[in-house]
Amino acid sequence: MTSESKLILTALPGLPLIQAGDNLAKLFLESLGQAGIQLQNGDLLAVAQKIISKAEGRLINLNEVIPSEEALRISKESHKDPRLVELILNESKRVFRIRPGLIIVEHQLGFVCANAGIDASNVDTFEGRAKDKVILLPKDPDASAQSLVDEIMQMTNAQIGVLIVDSHGRAWREGSVGVAIGIAGFPGLIDLRGTPDLFGEPLQSTQVGTADEVAAASSILMGQAAEGLPAIHVRGFPYQLRSGSLKDLLRPSEKDLFRK
Amino acid sequence: MTSESKLILTALPGLPLIQAGDNLAKLFLESLGQAGIQLQNGDLLAVAQKIISKAEGRLINLNEVIPSEEALRISKESHKDPRLVELILNESKRVFRIRPGLIIVEHQLGFVCANAGIDASNVDTFEGRAKDKVILLPKDPDASAQSLVDEIMQMTNAQIGVLIVDSHGRAWREGSVGVAIGIAGFPGLIDLRGTPDLFGEPLQSTQVGTADEVAAASSILMGQAAEGLPAIHVRGFPYQLRSGSLKDLLRPSEKDLFRK
Repeated sequence: MTSESKLILTALPGLPLIQAGDNLAKLFLESLGQAGIQLQNGDLLAVAQKIISKAEGRLINLNEVIPSEEALRISKESHKDPRLVELILNESKRVFRIRPGLIIVEHQLGFVCANAGIDASNVDTFEGRAKDKVILLPKDPDASAQSLVDEIMQMTNAQIGVLIVDSHGRAWREGSVGVAIGIAGFPGLIDLRGTPDLFGEPLQSTQVGTADEVAAASSILMGQAAEGLPAIHVRGFPYQLRSGSLKDLLRPSEKDLFRK
Repeated sequence: MTSESKLILTALPGLPLIQAGDNLAKLFLESLGQAGIQLQNGDLLAVAQKIISKAEGRLINLNEVIPSEEALRISKESHKDPRLVELILNESKRVFRIRPGLIIVEHQLGFVCANAGIDASNVDTFEGRAKDKVILLPKDPDASAQSLVDEIMQMTNAQIGVLIVDSHGRAWREGSVGVAIGIAGFPGLIDLRGTPDLFGEPLQSTQVGTADEVAAASSILMGQAAEGLPAIHVRGFPYQLRSGSLKDLLRPSEKDLFRK
């Protein structure tokens, strides 16, 4: 068996609750040490969006938000707090669908998601549970991922890939799945167009959303609730690392058959 | 570290090219033996759709297909072989979008996918490469998965879950990802609604498409081209196995905001 035939995902143990300003690279390396893992070239780290946002101080106090008229109108239609709606609109390019409890938007970052990825669960402060606090997505998740790649390279000399993971609902299928909203040192897509298949015929068109597949895989261990396992080490990724970006994974509006 | 914090995927080595009538359960167990893996309760097997279809004899010779008038019309619009279009229509409930090279349908099995999941790559016969052969999806992938669960239970006494994996394109995002098109002994969704989050507040609504996440994870190792790794063993799935069905993962038309 070659090393390509095994993929091993390990949840980083013992990470503390993350606060604004925390050095995630340092915390990850301490935790990897606890797990007995030494980073190697080609390893990946998948990190839950929420702890990136917390470390970057993307906590917002709803009491400081003044809703616009549009937010008030959409609040009625969506049964959502108008201050939260105001934040959702600020974070979005445009609104696709409004239903009670749900606002589907094209996020400023370019992807389609519910409620602009703003989350009110697992929000804490130094003082305890914060009822009026919500967390925005990182401002530039590719840059957040690149910082981690660079810092970890400096500390360990290992060339790894990092992806920032969020959970998105999907068209047509029930259940949210982990997707990559930021990547660095790691390809978003693997382009198998032109690769021969098992019988030597070139495949016509197969672009695989590999970063999203790694995000989904990591999401299995992260859980969504009280597990508190926001970072996953991945060993055995069977493709060469190279630079990548969230943009790899975004279908341009004009090529999208389902964006209206 | 608990056992829940590691997920290990292993591609089954040395599987032969699958032919109609092959006993997949037996072949998988031989291969697992080669890999030094003894099945345990709670393990999963993810199997590429294509080898299920081959074992079940779902190979069709295009020369035996007579295209209807509708197929001829859609053939012009899609630039696809009218006999292939005829098969796509037979396998589908309805057509959503037609573009050159692409027909997006609601499959008879209930999911939305391109070209009714019919594939012309990696098609072989005893005589060698078959230019005019295509492979349909399994007739009832849940039943195919259940047969494997039952046969493996009989042979090993291990209670495992099985999922049948295909690669689907998605709305809004580039790149195909592995999804489950049939499951048995395994939940399609994990319902975390009501589970407290890290700070004790119940989560409002989190249904996780866990079977699709496992499918995506397995797909990383399967590859799409010449790798020939169509079955993946998964150990460390952190949720209890129970019965499940493809239907868990399908959003009913009337609840779907993007099915028109």
